[in-house]
Amino acid sequence: MPIVTVTRRLRFNAAHRLHNPALSDEENAAVFGKCNNPNWHGHNYILEVAVEGPVDERTGYVIDLSKLKSIVQHEVIDRVDHRNLNIDVEFMRGVNPTAENIVVACWRVLERHVAPGRLRRLRLWETDNNYVEYEGA
Amino acid sequence: MPIVTVTRRLRFNAAHRLHNPALSDEENAAVFGKCNNPNWHGHNYILEVAVEGPVDERTGYVIDLSKLKSIVQHEVIDRVDHRNLNIDVEFMRGVNPTAENIVVACWRVLERHVAPGRLRRLRLWETDNNYVEYEGA
Amino acid sequence: MPIVTVTRRLRFNAAHRLHNPALSDEENAAVFGKCNNPNWHGHNYILEVAVEGPVDERTGYVIDLSKLKSIVQHEVIDRVDHRNLNIDVEFMRGVNPTAENIVVACWRVLERHVAPGRLRRLRLWETDNNYVEYEGA
Amino acid sequence: MPIVTVTRRLRFNAAHRLHNPALSDEENAAVFGKCNNPNWHGHNYILEVAVEGPVDERTGYVIDLSKLKSIVQHEVIDRVDHRNLNIDVEFMRGVNPTAENIVVACWRVLERHVAPGRLRRLRLWETDNNYVEYEGA
Amino acid sequence: MPIVTVTRRLRFNAAHRLHNPALSDEENAAVFGKCNNPNWHGHNYILEVAVEGPVDERTGYVIDLSKLKSIVQHEVIDRVDHRNLNIDVEFMRGVNPTAENIVVACWRVLERHVAPGRLRRLRLWETDNNYVEYEGA
Amino acid sequence: MPIVTVTRRLRFNAAHRLHNPALSDEENAAVFGKCNNPNWHGHNYILEVAVEGPVDERTGYVIDLSKLKSIVQHEVIDRVDHRNLNIDVEFMRGVNPTAENIVVACWRVLERHVAPGRLRRLRLWETDNNYVEYEGA
Repeated sequence: MPIVTVTRRLRFNAAHRLHNPALSDEENAAVFGKCNNPNWHGHNYILEVAVEGPVDERTGYVIDLSKLKSIVQHEVIDRVDHRNLNIDVEFMRGVNPTAENIVVACWRVLERHVAPGRLRRLRLWETDNNYVEYEGA
Repeated sequence: MPIVTVTRRLRFNAAHRLHNPALSDEENAAVFGKCNNPNWHGHNYILEVAVEGPVDERTGYVIDLSKLKSIVQHEVIDRVDHRNLNIDVEFMRGVNPTAENIVVACWRVLERHVAPGRLRRLRLWETDNNYVEYEGA
Repeated sequence: MPIVTVTRRLRFNAAHRLHNPALSDEENAAVFGKCNNPNWHGHNYILEVAVEGPVDERTGYVIDLSKLKSIVQHEVIDRVDHRNLNIDVEFMRGVNPTAENIVVACWRVLERHVAPGRLRRLRLWETDNNYVEYEGA
Repeated sequence: MPIVTVTRRLRFNAAHRLHNPALSDEENAAVFGKCNNPNWHGHNYILEVAVEGPVDERTGYVIDLSKLKSIVQHEVIDRVDHRNLNIDVEFMRGVNPTAENIVVACWRVLERHVAPGRLRRLRLWETDNNYVEYEGA
Repeated sequence: MPIVTVTRRLRFNAAHRLHNPALSDEENAAVFGKCNNPNWHGHNYILEVAVEGPVDERTGYVIDLSKLKSIVQHEVIDRVDHRNLNIDVEFMRGVNPTAENIVVACWRVLERHVAPGRLRRLRLWETDNNYVEYEGA
Repeated sequence: MPIVTVTRRLRFNAAHRLHNPALSDEENAAVFGKCNNPNWHGHNYILEVAVEGPVDERTGYVIDLSKLKSIVQHEVIDRVDHRNLNIDVEFMRGVNPTAENIVVACWRVLERHVAPGRLRRLRLWETDNNYVEYEGA
């Protein structure tokens, strides 16, 4: 069977602040600039979840996209949407919520839920002009 | 001279929370739902500023778009970008930061800065799926 | 109170065929070209619903966008999404489903459901390159 | 019959330079900045042509969009696409090609070609962040 | 010579229905949900065709994009645009038209037409929120 | 540490003309068609710069995106924006400015500036419908 990758995009709106508690306030301000604002800022994030696998002969699907949507909605979106990524999200506890760290944390949450497909790539858009990609390495 | 409308889009990323202090916590939760999250959430806002006027014969411009950009950057974007709309923004003091209230507040800040053009319309996108428009009425 | 227009975008995927039963097959083919294909074709439609009204002092809303979404979802989207616009949709019965006719039919369905707001404009995108607008005239 | 507005988007890629020959080189540089570069620059323009009229009972169309596309293609796009707006375009002769002046020139070319519809609005995108609109005033 | 990948996006609008004739009606409804609607639904598909190869020293091209466009237009788009993917398309005969199956079928049609370039990747967008990718494996 | 790829998109507007001086005028016209127009044409280019590396434990960054933006702005955008790619750009001297040749030239300029990250991929959009990608091969 051919190996195809299917991708579903989902959105969430969240507040965050870049801050490393191991650094002084001055260091945090120097490293993170306006992203260190103590009163937070926020984004409309877009998460693209790419799952790879053989096309099932019976369904013509790699994975049913409505099931994939439900999985990501339940495991990630419901936990981060309209939340504060520094405070409200169990799976981000103690993590500085840069786009890089968010995408790796999402991978760890999602990777065991897409079998028999395989998580191929997560892409997280933080703004229209920047995004990060993680492939599990 | 022909009357033309020119529009510049600018972006800002901000945290906010919908909350009316005149209501009880229960009422706020009922009215604003997840937008009332006490730890904030946030958005990538897009503000479209539309200025109308005759086309200047010498320049071919209604208003120099690089000047319009500087005006909006200075008067609005620098005050709201990477900020908390409930806490950090002087011109939003005491205002519940719904998209409707933000766009009206931006109008009041901008309207006197675009002469001899005339502010025709502000459009504020809060997400890819919703936006508000104000024309000064 | 300021008068603001709020817009919500919703999507539906539908099949249709342009065909006027009052015309002969040859006339239908001549008038509608490939859009007359007897086996149908389809689109990802985007419907933008714009509601105008004063900003409510208590909520800061013209209309709660999550309520507006529910209304449009229930009155329009649930009836047209993953359907055939010529066959499956009660409120399009006997109507040739051009974008113009769809948008007028949606207006008639929606206009009485957005009080105390007022339906200001419907915009229907049929493809990325064409859309129609109706303002109730 | 209901009055509907239909819009078709078309694209063209062109070179231009902002320059008023009635001004000195120094004045041109001061007024137009980098847009005055003597060796030109260019854009992917998007032109949105909006035509208003009653919905024809026989066709369900205000105007057949494939006819509207052909008209705009023939009257405008074929004359400006992959051209230099200062040199190559008859209907821009002697006009400083600001977005404002281009949109007004396009209006004059197109307005007599969309009968029995009526040209309602032209919108010209010069970049993703700025556009101009003309309604014939 | 450097190896570069060039991609051309083309669009088609088609009707389809997900249905496996080897399953009962109940099974089809359970597996495919609303996508199994017997009266069809449809999409605005976007097909991205990526061709890889060395940059030709004489032309600076991997492949002339206007030639690539003509190839894809002739081999794929003209056969699927404004058609029913279950009924009208020879190269989809007997194939359940999931996005996965469409993209693999397009690969088989296109792969021998892009020499001396090499087909690197096809990406098919079914909606703004989901797409599939095939790389020939 | 996880290996993540971060991408920043930047834009520039430039004029160009496809022309190989080793060919006759007739050959150039035959090979490049309307892209060979002697008076130039132009585009809104989008350059996506993807940098790969381990996530720094102190910052949570692969590379600070505001630094990456400054690097690309200084090394590429300031040299090509509002310029003529055939005439004005030192690093394109003697190069026929096809999208393929531009993206390879940008790679050579940028690759030594993103250490300790590694340039993973450049993607250059010439229009909404075509882009090229280079990964350094």
